[in-house]
Amino acid sequence: MRYKIIIEYNGFDYLGWQKQAQKQGQTIEEIIQNAIFLATQENVDVMGSGRTDAGVHAIAQVAHFDLVKNFEPFRLNGALNNYLRLTNVSIISCQIVDDNFHSRFDAKMRHYQYKIINRKAPLTIMRNFAWHVANYLDFEEMQKAAKYLLGTHDFSAFQDAECQSKSPIKTISKIEIKRNNDEIIINCSAKSFLHHMVRNIVGTLIWVGCGKIKAQDITMILEKRDRTLSGPNAPAYGLYFMGVDY
Amino acid sequence: MRYKIIIEYNGFDYLGWQKQAQKQGQTIEEIIQNAIFLATQENVDVMGSGRTDAGVHAIAQVAHFDLVKNFEPFRLNGALNNYLRLTNVSIISCQIVDDNFHSRFDAKMRHYQYKIINRKAPLTIMRNFAWHVANYLDFEEMQKAAKYLLGTHDFSAFQDAECQSKSPIKTISKIEIKRNNDEIIINCSAKSFLHHMVRNIVGTLIWVGCGKIKAQDITMILEKRDRTLSGPNAPAYGLYFMGVDY
Repeated sequence: MRYKIIIEYNGFDYLGWQKQAQKQGQTIEEIIQNAIFLATQENVDVMGSGRTDAGVHAIAQVAHFDLVKNFEPFRLNGALNNYLRLTNVSIISCQIVDDNFHSRFDAKMRHYQYKIINRKAPLTIMRNFAWHVANYLDFEEMQKAAKYLLGTHDFSAFQDAECQSKSPIKTISKIEIKRNNDEIIINCSAKSFLHHMVRNIVGTLIWVGCGKIKAQDITMILEKRDRTLSGPNAPAYGLYFMGVDY
Repeated sequence: MRYKIIIEYNGFDYLGWQKQAQKQGQTIEEIIQNAIFLATQENVDVMGSGRTDAGVHAIAQVAHFDLVKNFEPFRLNGALNNYLRLTNVSIISCQIVDDNFHSRFDAKMRHYQYKIINRKAPLTIMRNFAWHVANYLDFEEMQKAAKYLLGTHDFSAFQDAECQSKSPIKTISKIEIKRNNDEIIINCSAKSFLHHMVRNIVGTLIWVGCGKIKAQDITMILEKRDRTLSGPNAPAYGLYFMGVDY
Protein backbone atom coordinates (compact mmCIF):
# COMPACT_ATOMS: atom_id res chain seq x y z
CA MET A 1 0.00 0.00 0.00
CA ARG A 2 1.16 3.52 -0.76
CA TYR A 3 0.61 6.13 1.97
CA LYS A 4 0.60 9.90 1.53
CA ILE A 5 1.37 12.02 4.58
CA ILE A 6 1.21 15.76 5.19
CA ILE A 7 3.94 16.91 7.57
CA GLU A 8 4.45 20.05 9.65
CA TYR A 9 7.83 20.88 11.17
CA ASN A 10 9.74 23.56 12.98
CA GLY A 11 12.92 23.39 10.89
CA PHE A 12 15.09 25.39 13.24
CA ASP A 13 16.79 22.45 14.96
CA TYR A 14 17.19 20.25 11.88
CA LEU A 15 19.53 19.86 8.92
CA GLY A 16 16.63 20.08 6.47
CA TRP A 17 14.57 17.43 4.73
CA GLN A 18 17.53 15.44 3.43
CA LYS A 19 21.25 15.35 4.15
CA GLN A 20 22.91 17.73 1.66
CA ALA A 21 26.43 18.01 3.07
CA GLN A 22 28.68 16.51 5.75
CA LYS A 23 26.96 18.29 8.63
CA GLN A 24 26.13 16.89 12.05
CA GLY A 25 22.51 16.66 13.04
CA GLN A 26 19.16 15.15 12.16
CA THR A 27 17.16 15.38 8.95
CA ILE A 28 13.35 15.42 8.82
CA GLU A 29 13.48 12.45 6.43
CA GLU A 30 15.44 10.30 8.93
CA ILE A 31 13.17 11.30 11.80
CA ILE A 32 10.05 10.24 9.88
CA GLN A 33 11.62 7.00 8.57
CA ASN A 34 12.56 6.15 12.14
CA ALA A 35 9.00 6.80 13.41
CA ILE A 36 7.57 4.66 10.58
CA PHE A 37 9.92 1.82 11.55
CA LEU A 38 8.92 2.05 15.21
CA ALA A 39 5.21 2.07 14.29
CA THR A 40 5.28 -0.66 11.59
CA GLN A 41 8.58 -2.58 11.88
CA GLU A 42 9.10 -1.79 8.19
CA ASN A 43 12.12 0.04 6.79
CA VAL A 44 10.91 2.45 4.15
CA ASP A 45 12.21 5.22 1.92
CA VAL A 46 10.12 8.32 2.48
CA MET A 47 9.89 10.40 -0.71
CA GLY A 48 9.30 14.08 -0.02
CA SER A 49 7.76 16.50 -2.52
CA GLY A 50 10.85 18.69 -2.20
CA ARG A 51 14.01 19.06 -0.12
CA THR A 52 13.70 21.96 2.30
CA ASP A 53 17.03 23.41 3.47
CA ALA A 54 18.33 23.38 7.03
CA GLY A 55 16.22 25.71 9.18
CA VAL A 56 13.29 26.02 6.76
CA HIS A 57 9.86 25.32 8.30
CA ALA A 58 6.97 23.40 6.76
CA ILE A 59 3.25 23.86 7.26
CA ALA A 60 2.32 21.13 4.77
CA GLN A 61 5.23 19.18 3.33
CA VAL A 62 3.96 16.11 1.46
CA ALA A 63 5.64 12.70 1.26
CA HIS A 64 4.79 9.14 0.27
CA PHE A 65 6.04 5.68 1.25
CA ASP A 66 5.05 2.04 0.72
CA LEU A 67 4.23 -0.51 3.40
CA VAL A 68 3.95 -4.28 2.91
CA LYS A 69 1.50 -4.78 5.78
CA ASN A 70 -1.88 -3.06 5.80
CA PHE A 71 -2.31 -0.27 8.33
CA GLU A 72 -5.46 1.77 8.93
CA PRO A 73 -4.30 5.32 7.99
CA PHE A 74 -5.91 7.16 10.93
CA ARG A 75 -4.37 4.77 13.46
CA LEU A 76 -1.00 4.88 11.66
CA ASN A 77 -1.13 8.68 11.84
CA GLY A 78 -1.65 8.52 15.62
CA ALA A 79 1.12 5.95 16.05
CA LEU A 80 3.58 8.06 14.04
CA ASN A 81 2.79 11.16 16.12
CA ASN A 82 3.27 9.12 19.27
CA TYR A 83 6.81 8.20 18.18
CA LEU A 84 7.43 11.80 17.04
CA ARG A 85 6.30 13.37 20.30
CA LEU A 86 9.79 14.40 21.43
CA THR A 87 10.59 15.98 18.04
CA ASN A 88 9.43 19.15 16.28
CA VAL A 89 7.86 17.10 13.48
CA SER A 90 4.13 16.30 13.33
CA ILE A 91 2.03 14.28 10.88
CA ILE A 92 -1.07 16.34 10.04
CA SER A 93 -2.77 13.69 7.90
CA CYS A 94 -2.21 10.20 6.51
CA GLN A 95 -4.13 8.51 3.71
CA ILE A 96 -3.84 5.55 1.33
CA VAL A 97 -3.27 6.68 -2.26
CA ASP A 98 -2.98 5.03 -5.67
CA ASP A 99 0.26 3.05 -6.16
CA ASN A 100 1.18 5.46 -8.97
CA PHE A 101 0.99 8.60 -6.82
CA HIS A 102 4.37 10.31 -6.54
CA SER A 103 4.79 13.19 -4.07
CA ARG A 104 7.61 14.76 -6.09
CA PHE A 105 6.88 14.06 -9.75
CA ASP A 106 3.09 14.59 -9.55
CA ALA A 107 3.39 18.03 -7.94
CA LYS A 108 1.60 20.66 -10.06
CA MET A 109 2.36 23.65 -7.83
CA ARG A 110 4.50 24.32 -4.75
CA HIS A 111 3.69 27.16 -2.37
CA TYR A 112 6.20 29.03 -0.19
CA GLN A 113 5.77 31.87 2.27
CA TYR A 114 8.47 34.16 3.64
CA LYS A 115 7.98 36.21 6.84
CA ILE A 116 9.80 39.47 7.55
CA ILE A 117 9.39 41.67 10.62
CA ASN A 118 10.34 45.24 9.72
CA ARG A 119 11.02 47.26 12.89
CA LYS A 120 13.87 48.57 15.02
CA ALA A 121 13.25 46.40 18.09
CA PRO A 122 14.73 42.88 18.12
CA LEU A 123 12.32 39.94 17.90
CA THR A 124 11.20 37.86 20.87
CA ILE A 125 8.15 35.71 20.05
CA MET A 126 8.97 35.59 16.31
CA ARG A 127 12.70 35.00 16.80
CA ASN A 128 13.61 31.94 14.64
CA PHE A 129 10.28 32.33 12.81
CA ALA A 130 10.80 35.51 10.75
CA TRP A 131 13.65 37.60 9.32
CA HIS A 132 14.21 40.74 11.38
CA VAL A 133 14.93 43.70 9.06
CA ALA A 134 15.58 46.91 11.02
CA ASN A 135 16.09 49.28 8.04
CA TYR A 136 13.17 51.24 6.60
CA LEU A 137 11.65 49.30 3.68
CA ASP A 138 9.85 50.91 0.75
CA PHE A 139 6.96 48.48 0.53
CA GLU A 140 5.43 49.85 -2.70
CA GLU A 141 8.80 49.57 -4.49
CA MET A 142 9.08 45.93 -3.33
CA GLN A 143 5.60 45.22 -4.72
CA LYS A 144 6.62 46.75 -8.06
CA ALA A 145 9.81 44.66 -8.14
CA ALA A 146 7.91 41.43 -7.50
CA LYS A 147 5.87 41.95 -10.69
CA TYR A 148 9.05 41.70 -12.80
CA LEU A 149 9.62 38.19 -11.41
CA LEU A 150 6.18 36.86 -12.31
CA GLY A 151 6.01 34.45 -15.26
CA THR A 152 8.62 32.35 -17.07
CA HIS A 153 12.25 33.51 -16.86
CA ASP A 154 15.80 32.23 -16.76
CA PHE A 155 16.40 32.47 -12.99
CA SER A 156 20.18 31.79 -13.12
CA ALA A 157 20.79 35.02 -11.16
CA PHE A 158 18.75 33.57 -8.29
CA GLN A 159 20.27 30.09 -8.41
CA ASP A 160 22.59 28.60 -5.81
CA ALA A 161 25.93 27.16 -7.03
CA GLU A 162 24.97 23.72 -5.62
CA CYS A 163 21.72 23.62 -7.58
CA GLN A 164 21.16 20.32 -9.44
CA SER A 165 18.27 21.53 -11.59
CA LYS A 166 18.53 20.61 -15.30
CA SER A 167 17.32 24.01 -16.45
CA PRO A 168 17.39 27.49 -14.85
CA ILE A 169 14.12 28.35 -16.60
CA LYS A 170 11.21 28.37 -14.14
CA THR A 171 7.71 29.84 -14.06
CA ILE A 172 6.55 31.86 -11.05
CA SER A 173 2.76 31.56 -11.15
CA LYS A 174 2.11 33.81 -8.16
CA ILE A 175 4.15 36.27 -6.14
CA GLU A 176 2.39 38.61 -3.75
CA ILE A 177 3.66 40.84 -0.95
CA LYS A 178 1.37 41.84 1.89
CA ARG A 179 1.98 44.15 4.82
CA ASN A 180 0.25 43.91 8.21
CA ASN A 181 1.76 46.43 10.65
CA ASP A 182 5.42 45.41 11.09
CA GLU A 183 4.99 42.09 9.31
CA ILE A 184 5.72 41.67 5.61
CA ILE A 185 4.59 38.40 4.03
CA ILE A 186 5.83 37.22 0.64
CA ASN A 187 3.85 34.38 -0.99
CA CYS A 188 5.46 32.68 -3.96
CA SER A 189 4.15 29.74 -6.00
CA ALA A 190 5.68 27.75 -8.87
CA LYS A 191 5.61 24.21 -10.23
CA SER A 192 9.25 23.95 -9.16
CA PHE A 193 12.06 26.17 -7.89
CA LEU A 194 15.83 26.30 -8.18
CA HIS A 195 17.92 25.72 -5.04
CA HIS A 196 17.73 28.82 -2.75
CA MET A 197 15.57 30.57 -5.37
CA VAL A 198 12.87 31.85 -2.99
CA ARG A 199 15.41 33.04 -0.40
CA ASN A 200 17.53 34.75 -3.10
CA ILE A 201 14.40 36.47 -4.44
CA VAL A 202 13.51 37.66 -0.92
CA GLY A 203 17.05 38.97 -0.37
CA THR A 204 16.83 40.86 -3.66
CA LEU A 205 13.40 42.32 -2.79
CA ILE A 206 14.91 43.55 0.50
CA TRP A 207 17.65 45.30 -1.52
CA VAL A 208 14.85 46.99 -3.48
CA GLY A 209 13.06 47.91 -0.24
CA CYS A 210 16.26 49.44 1.19
CA GLY A 211 16.85 51.46 -1.99
CA LYS A 212 20.11 49.66 -2.88
CA ILE A 213 18.64 48.78 -6.29
CA LYS A 214 15.48 49.88 -8.12
CA ALA A 215 12.41 47.76 -8.91
CA GLN A 216 13.13 47.83 -12.65
CA ASP A 217 16.70 46.54 -12.04
CA ILE A 218 15.11 43.10 -11.63
CA THR A 219 14.77 42.87 -15.44
CA MET A 220 18.50 43.57 -15.90
CA ILE A 221 19.44 41.06 -13.16
CA LEU A 222 17.31 38.36 -14.83
CA GLU A 223 18.81 39.13 -18.25
CA LYS A 224 22.44 39.14 -17.05
CA ARG A 225 21.90 35.76 -15.32
CA ASP A 226 24.65 36.68 -12.81
CA ARG A 227 24.23 35.61 -9.14
CA THR A 228 26.59 38.41 -8.00
CA LEU A 229 24.03 41.02 -9.10
CA SER A 230 21.12 39.70 -6.99
CA GLY A 231 20.65 40.18 -3.25
CA PRO A 232 21.72 38.02 -0.29
CA ASN A 233 20.24 34.62 0.52
CA ALA A 234 17.53 35.47 3.08
CA PRO A 235 17.77 33.46 6.35
CA ALA A 236 16.22 29.98 6.26
CA TYR A 237 14.18 30.47 9.47
CA GLY A 238 11.87 33.02 7.73
CA LEU A 239 10.82 30.50 5.04
CA TYR A 240 7.77 28.24 5.25
CA PHE A 241 6.91 25.45 2.81
CA MET A 242 3.13 25.95 2.70
CA GLY A 243 1.94 23.07 0.55
CA VAL A 244 1.75 21.27 -2.76
CA ASP A 245 -1.06 21.03 -5.32
CA TYR A 246 -1.47 17.73 -7.21
CA MET B 1 11.97 62.58 33.84
CA ARG B 2 9.33 59.87 33.56
CA TYR B 3 9.72 57.36 30.73
CA LYS B 4 7.00 55.11 29.30
CA ILE B 5 8.12 51.95 27.52
CA ILE B 6 6.21 49.36 25.50
CA ILE B 7 7.64 45.88 25.94
CA GLU B 8 7.32 42.63 23.99
CA TYR B 9 8.38 39.31 25.52
CA ASN B 10 8.32 35.60 24.95
CA GLY B 11 7.22 34.61 28.46
CA PHE B 12 8.04 30.94 28.15
CA ASP B 13 11.41 31.02 29.91
CA TYR B 14 10.48 33.53 32.61
CA LEU B 15 8.77 33.60 36.00
CA GLY B 16 6.38 36.31 34.85
CA TRP B 17 6.45 40.07 35.23
CA GLN B 18 7.06 40.07 38.97
CA LYS B 19 8.14 37.47 41.53
CA GLN B 20 4.95 35.95 42.96
CA ALA B 21 6.30 32.93 44.85
CA GLN B 22 9.60 31.37 45.93
CA LYS B 23 10.48 30.06 42.50
CA GLN B 24 13.89 30.03 40.84
CA GLY B 25 14.32 32.02 37.66
CA GLN B 26 14.17 35.49 36.18
CA THR B 27 11.31 37.96 36.07
CA ILE B 28 10.70 40.38 33.21
CA GLU B 29 10.76 43.26 35.72
CA GLU B 30 14.28 42.34 36.95
CA ILE B 31 15.57 41.89 33.41
CA ILE B 32 14.37 45.36 32.40
CA GLN B 33 15.61 47.03 35.61
CA ASN B 34 19.00 45.45 34.99
CA ALA B 35 19.12 46.73 31.39
CA ILE B 36 18.12 50.23 32.57
CA PHE B 37 20.94 50.15 35.14
CA LEU B 38 23.49 49.08 32.51
CA ALA B 39 22.30 51.80 30.12
CA THR B 40 21.96 54.66 32.63
CA GLN B 41 23.80 53.70 35.85
CA GLU B 42 20.55 54.45 37.67
CA ASN B 43 18.70 51.97 39.86
CA VAL B 44 14.99 52.31 39.15
CA ASP B 45 11.69 50.66 40.02
CA VAL B 46 9.90 49.72 36.82
CA MET B 47 6.12 49.89 37.27
CA GLY B 48 4.26 47.59 34.89
CA SER B 49 0.64 48.06 33.86
CA GLY B 50 -0.14 44.57 35.13
CA ARG B 51 1.63 41.46 36.40
CA THR B 52 1.62 38.74 33.77
CA ASP B 53 2.02 35.19 35.13
CA ALA B 54 4.94 32.87 34.45
CA GLY B 55 4.87 31.77 30.81
CA VAL B 56 2.44 34.44 29.59
CA HIS B 57 3.65 36.40 26.52
CA ALA B 58 3.31 40.13 25.86
CA ILE B 59 2.94 41.95 22.57
CA ALA B 60 2.63 45.37 24.22
CA GLN B 61 3.12 45.42 27.98
CA VAL B 62 3.45 49.01 29.24
CA ALA B 63 5.66 50.23 32.08
CA HIS B 64 7.03 53.49 33.45
CA PHE B 65 10.12 54.53 35.43
CA ASP B 66 11.89 57.73 36.49
CA LEU B 67 15.46 58.74 35.67
CA VAL B 68 17.41 61.56 37.31
CA LYS B 69 19.61 62.21 34.29
CA ASN B 70 18.13 63.22 30.95
CA PHE B 71 18.25 60.60 28.20
CA GLU B 72 17.06 61.01 24.63
CA PRO B 73 14.24 58.39 24.42
CA PHE B 74 15.13 56.96 20.99
CA ARG B 75 18.77 56.44 22.01
CA LEU B 76 17.74 55.03 25.39
CA ASN B 77 15.46 52.57 23.56
CA GLY B 78 18.41 51.39 21.44
CA ALA B 79 20.71 51.12 24.46
CA LEU B 80 18.13 49.05 26.39
CA ASN B 81 17.67 46.65 23.46
CA ASN B 82 21.44 46.32 23.21
CA TYR B 83 21.61 45.15 26.84
CA LEU B 84 18.54 42.93 26.30
CA ARG B 85 19.91 41.21 23.20
CA LEU B 86 20.57 37.87 24.90
CA THR B 87 17.08 37.80 26.45
CA ASN B 88 13.60 37.23 25.04
CA VAL B 89 12.54 40.75 26.06
CA SER B 90 12.46 43.69 23.61
CA ILE B 91 11.60 47.37 24.05
CA ILE B 92 9.28 48.35 21.17
CA SER B 93 9.11 52.05 22.04
CA CYS B 94 10.29 54.56 24.64
CA GLN B 95 8.97 58.06 25.23
CA ILE B 96 9.03 60.81 27.86
CA VAL B 97 5.64 61.25 29.55
CA ASP B 98 4.09 63.57 32.09
CA ASP B 99 5.37 63.04 35.66
CA ASN B 100 1.82 62.13 36.68
CA PHE B 101 1.45 59.30 34.15
CA HIS B 102 1.00 55.93 35.87
CA SER B 103 1.14 52.75 33.78
CA ARG B 104 -1.04 50.82 36.22
CA PHE B 105 -3.51 53.30 37.71
CA ASP B 106 -4.17 55.25 34.50
CA ALA B 107 -5.05 52.15 32.45
CA LYS B 108 -8.55 52.50 30.98
CA MET B 109 -8.61 49.14 29.20
CA ARG B 110 -6.42 46.02 29.07
CA HIS B 111 -6.49 43.66 26.09
CA TYR B 112 -5.66 39.96 26.17
CA GLN B 113 -5.62 37.32 23.44
CA TYR B 114 -5.67 33.55 23.90
CA LYS B 115 -4.58 31.17 21.10
CA ILE B 116 -5.84 27.61 20.76
CA ILE B 117 -4.93 25.12 18.02
CA ASN B 118 -7.74 22.60 17.65
CA ARG B 119 -6.52 19.51 15.79
CA LYS B 120 -5.37 15.93 16.39
CA ALA B 121 -1.71 16.42 15.40
CA PRO B 122 0.72 17.74 18.03
CA LEU B 123 2.08 21.27 17.54
CA THR B 124 5.54 22.03 16.17
CA ILE B 125 5.89 25.69 15.14
CA MET B 126 3.21 26.87 17.61
CA ARG B 127 4.43 24.69 20.49
CA ASN B 128 4.80 27.03 23.52
CA PHE B 129 2.74 29.67 21.68
CA ALA B 130 -0.78 28.16 21.70
CA TRP B 131 -2.84 25.63 23.68
CA HIS B 132 -3.17 22.35 21.77
CA VAL B 133 -6.72 20.99 22.15
CA ALA B 134 -7.16 17.67 20.31
CA ASN B 135 -10.87 17.10 21.12
CA TYR B 136 -13.57 18.27 18.74
CA LEU B 137 -14.79 21.75 19.80
CA ASP B 138 -18.28 23.10 19.12
CA PHE B 139 -17.25 26.58 18.06
CA GLU B 140 -20.79 28.05 17.85
CA GLU B 141 -21.57 26.88 21.39
CA MET B 142 -18.35 28.55 22.62
CA GLN B 143 -19.41 31.80 20.93
CA LYS B 144 -22.80 31.59 22.64
CA ALA B 145 -21.16 30.96 26.01
CA ALA B 146 -18.88 33.98 25.64
CA LYS B 147 -21.90 36.29 25.38
CA TYR B 148 -22.98 35.37 28.93
CA LEU B 149 -19.62 36.68 30.22
CA LEU B 150 -19.90 40.08 28.57
CA GLY B 151 -20.64 43.03 30.88
CA THR B 152 -20.40 43.50 34.66
CA HIS B 153 -20.53 40.38 36.82
CA ASP B 154 -19.22 38.93 40.06
CA PHE B 155 -16.38 36.78 38.61
CA SER B 156 -15.58 34.90 41.87
CA ALA B 157 -16.05 31.58 40.02
CA PHE B 158 -13.17 32.56 37.70
CA GLN B 159 -10.88 33.91 40.42
CA ASP B 160 -7.66 32.31 41.59
CA ALA B 161 -7.26 31.66 45.35
CA GLU B 162 -4.15 33.90 45.44
CA CYS B 163 -6.00 36.85 43.91
CA GLN B 164 -5.42 40.12 45.78
CA SER B 165 -8.21 42.10 44.06
CA LYS B 166 -10.43 44.10 46.45
CA SER B 167 -13.61 43.17 44.60
CA PRO B 168 -14.56 40.18 42.41
CA ILE B 169 -16.84 42.44 40.37
CA LYS B 170 -15.33 43.19 36.97
CA THR B 171 -16.63 44.42 33.60
CA ILE B 172 -15.73 42.56 30.41
CA SER B 173 -16.09 45.18 27.67
CA LYS B 174 -15.30 42.85 24.80
CA ILE B 175 -15.04 39.10 24.35
CA GLU B 176 -14.91 37.66 20.84
CA ILE B 177 -14.01 34.22 19.52
CA LYS B 178 -12.73 33.80 15.99
CA ARG B 179 -11.85 30.68 14.05
CA ASN B 180 -9.31 30.47 11.22
CA ASN B 181 -8.86 26.85 10.11
CA ASP B 182 -7.42 25.01 13.15
CA GLU B 183 -6.73 28.18 15.11
CA ILE B 184 -9.22 29.58 17.62
CA ILE B 185 -8.52 33.09 18.91
CA ILE B 186 -10.23 34.53 21.99
CA ASN B 187 -9.93 38.31 22.45
CA CYS B 188 -10.95 39.66 25.85
CA SER B 189 -10.82 43.28 27.08
CA ALA B 190 -11.59 44.83 30.48
CA LYS B 191 -10.41 47.76 32.59
CA SER B 192 -8.97 45.16 34.99
CA PHE B 193 -9.05 41.41 35.56
CA LEU B 194 -8.88 39.07 38.56
CA HIS B 195 -5.83 36.80 38.87
CA HIS B 196 -6.06 33.93 36.34
CA MET B 197 -9.44 35.28 35.16
CA VAL B 198 -8.76 35.11 31.40
CA ARG B 199 -7.20 31.64 31.62
CA ASN B 200 -10.09 30.35 33.79
CA ILE B 201 -12.58 31.78 31.29
CA VAL B 202 -10.73 30.05 28.42
CA GLY B 203 -10.70 26.74 30.32
CA THR B 204 -14.45 27.07 30.89
CA LEU B 205 -15.11 27.93 27.23
CA ILE B 206 -13.18 24.78 26.28
CA TRP B 207 -15.50 22.78 28.59
CA VAL B 208 -18.41 24.29 26.66
CA GLY B 209 -16.73 23.43 23.33
CA CYS B 210 -16.19 19.82 24.44
CA GLY B 211 -19.84 19.50 25.56
CA LYS B 212 -18.98 18.98 29.24
CA ILE B 213 -21.22 21.94 30.12
CA LYS B 214 -23.72 23.99 28.10
CA ALA B 215 -23.36 27.64 27.05
CA GLN B 216 -26.18 28.74 29.35
CA ASP B 217 -24.46 27.07 32.34
CA ILE B 218 -22.18 30.13 32.40
CA THR B 219 -25.00 32.11 34.06
CA MET B 220 -25.33 29.51 36.82
CA ILE B 221 -21.54 29.38 37.33
CA LEU B 222 -21.37 33.19 37.66
CA GLU B 223 -24.31 33.19 40.11
CA LYS B 224 -22.94 30.39 42.31
CA ARG B 225 -19.54 32.17 42.52
CA ASP B 226 -17.85 28.78 43.02
CA ARG B 227 -14.43 28.17 41.43
CA THR B 228 -15.01 24.39 41.50
CA LEU B 229 -17.82 24.78 38.92
CA SER B 230 -15.74 26.55 36.27
CA GLY B 231 -13.22 24.93 33.91
CA PRO B 232 -9.47 24.39 34.23
CA ASN B 233 -6.91 27.18 34.20
CA ALA B 234 -5.80 27.23 30.53
CA PRO B 235 -1.99 26.99 30.03
CA ALA B 236 -0.08 30.26 30.38
CA TYR B 237 1.81 29.85 27.07
CA GLY B 238 -1.38 30.40 25.03
CA LEU B 239 -2.01 33.83 26.59
CA TYR B 240 -0.80 37.13 25.11
CA PHE B 241 -1.02 40.53 26.81
CA MET B 242 -1.88 42.64 23.75
CA GLY B 243 -1.87 46.17 25.11
CA VAL B 244 -3.31 48.87 27.33
CA ASP B 245 -5.47 51.91 26.51
CA TYR B 246 -4.89 55.11 28.53
